[in-house]
Amino acid sequence: MTRAVDADALGDVLARLRERRPRVHCLLNTVVQNLVADGLTALGAVPSMTSSPEEIEGFVARADALLVNLGTLTAERAGVSERAVAVAAQRSTPWVLDPVKCEDSPVRLALARRLIAAGPFAVKLNASEAAMLAPQGGILIVETGPRDRLAVAGREIAVANGDPLLARVTGTGCLAGAILAACAGVEDDPLLAGAAALTILGVSAEMAAPRSRGPGSFAVELLDALGSIAPSDLIAHARIHHAET
Amino acid sequence: MTRAVDADALGDVLARLRERRPRVHCLLNTVVQNLVADGLTALGAVPSMTSSPEEIEGFVARADALLVNLGTLTAERAGVSERAVAVAAQRSTPWVLDPVKCEDSPVRLALARRLIAAGPFAVKLNASEAAMLAPQGGILIVETGPRDRLAVAGREIAVANGDPLLARVTGTGCLAGAILAACAGVEDDPLLAGAAALTILGVSAEMAAPRSRGPGSFAVELLDALGSIAPSDLIAHARIHHAET
Amino acid sequence: MTRAVDADALGDVLARLRERRPRVHCLLNTVVQNLVADGLTALGAVPSMTSSPEEIEGFVARADALLVNLGTLTAERAGVSERAVAVAAQRSTPWVLDPVKCEDSPVRLALARRLIAAGPFAVKLNASEAAMLAPQGGILIVETGPRDRLAVAGREIAVANGDPLLARVTGTGCLAGAILAACAGVEDDPLLAGAAALTILGVSAEMAAPRSRGPGSFAVELLDALGSIAPSDLIAHARIHHAET
Repeated sequence: MTRAVDADALGDVLARLRERRPRVHCLLNTVVQNLVADGLTALGAVPSMTSSPEEIEGFVARADALLVNLGTLTAERAGVSERAVAVAAQRSTPWVLDPVKCEDSPVRLALARRLIAAGPFAVKLNASEAAMLAPQGGILIVETGPRDRLAVAGREIAVANGDPLLARVTGTGCLAGAILAACAGVEDDPLLAGAAALTILGVSAEMAAPRSRGPGSFAVELLDALGSIAPSDLIAHARIHHAET
Repeated sequence: MTRAVDADALGDVLARLRERRPRVHCLLNTVVQNLVADGLTALGAVPSMTSSPEEIEGFVARADALLVNLGTLTAERAGVSERAVAVAAQRSTPWVLDPVKCEDSPVRLALARRLIAAGPFAVKLNASEAAMLAPQGGILIVETGPRDRLAVAGREIAVANGDPLLARVTGTGCLAGAILAACAGVEDDPLLAGAAALTILGVSAEMAAPRSRGPGSFAVELLDALGSIAPSDLIAHARIHHAET
Repeated sequence: MTRAVDADALGDVLARLRERRPRVHCLLNTVVQNLVADGLTALGAVPSMTSSPEEIEGFVARADALLVNLGTLTAERAGVSERAVAVAAQRSTPWVLDPVKCEDSPVRLALARRLIAAGPFAVKLNASEAAMLAPQGGILIVETGPRDRLAVAGREIAVANGDPLLARVTGTGCLAGAILAACAGVEDDPLLAGAAALTILGVSAEMAAPRSRGPGSFAVELLDALGSIAPSDLIAHARIHHAET
């Protein structure tokens, strides 16, 4: 279903996320597991993180959404990712692909292409990664940058929230993908779910930055902001620009 | 040896922990390794964390206590856990089992049952995990929840310390198990060691909460509190209730 | 090239690090990956962390420096470390060895000795580790302790910066090795690169400590200090002592 992406709709996604507490299974590099788990928990979602071949199917079957992040990919996690996606597809569970640094790794690039063919809800990437990958029209593309761009099936918007300190804390990009998965667990329209995720993270960053003196305190304040951000904050501060196409 | 579980005895366990600095080897999921290592170090214990098959026996042999946590279990870590427990049993080193989410994973449940048969010092679990597992009477059961319950060999107490923010930081439950292992390294009576661990964490959380504005700052303040909590804090603030059986 | 190790030269290394943003690939135990990634990023370097056999060669080939840390060593990471070092040697990329707890693990000790024979830029260790390992004269030895000692090819200095709180946060020793690799990526003289790394971390710790109430807030303040430390801070506060040999 396609919905208008306006401030009230964004606030509504956040309200539902807080109420339903979606379970988000994350296949994730070990470097950022802790930040992503803390960020999702602060926001009200319920993360799980096993990438064990023996356990993956059961955990994905119980999840409301799945994140497949290719950072520090191992051969084992590559195989587990394909099985996780198969379970998600079978159950119509939305899943998000984050093909971290696929431009630097032929193994990740090949896997990303196979996974995209399996039909993710969304692909989150930056400009270098986007240059290597070409999803179909029905898949939401979230290209992060100084201004984030979201596009799906001819609809396009930009999100102008955020703070430069986000780039100075390891794992905030991965956290964006995880929040996108959490929003996909409570909202069917990809463009609205994507806009909600990026404005939740971006407005939280704007709440955190003035309280911070550097990347260490910013990471702490960001988790506090994710814990306290309310639908009214999104409604007041989201900066969404609709493309004039 | 059985000792009275009163405020002075709890303070005494903490004083010994600070003085002896027990080495605690932790077999632990990768998500929470950093928080648990920092929490143990803040408290004065000395953590080690390898789960390599080549190294596990030497590290357990040098440890004063062992934590076996089944979160994000892999087949390799399952085998390593059994070898670690065998070394601990042989050397009479106390070890603690934390069967994380064993109700959601047949692999973890089967391993948890095998490990319990090997005689842990204590099993730390929540209500859903407890429903699946039945230890013998000589093993301390620590069931965490809004009020923690500890039971062993017909003795039973409840601990009422803590703060709701503990549930909003990933890994504080795993940290409780690690602190329990650290206390087991300096105190033979399971009920006293368990009560010391839960009041140390719970009173630290009560010291941290008023200084916090959300889950991010709470995690920071909790580590500071674990670093500064004194026997006199435990004596003043521990809330232990003895069952009237 | 050999350069005078004085305050101006240290400030110059930091200025170059900020300007060139060296890519530092880190083979690292999972416990401290997050702190090291955040510390390098705060300082202005660009970390990568994969230890996948399929990816290691490409990532090392693109890096300006390499850190090989043996903490929580697995058989797979041991093999990957040897391949990483071979690529670094072939490309004359400087690499730093941190043989964590090699005195407690025959596997790590044997690997450390093989790697030292391959010619690292520097070996960072503490007194117990140093007692087990004997590098050749051309390799910088950095022995950390209450006062850090650096020696290479007959030159020797001591660095007296730092704070006792560094020992109460997991991973600050590993971070010292990573900052040393980052400095090696912008400075060829081992003694100057090593002195720059230890004074950057030590002076940052001195900036952080007065703002901290314990190990939790110290870790946060340390990252903030690494993000803001300027060449003028190094010039004003570095405490370098030249040996009178």
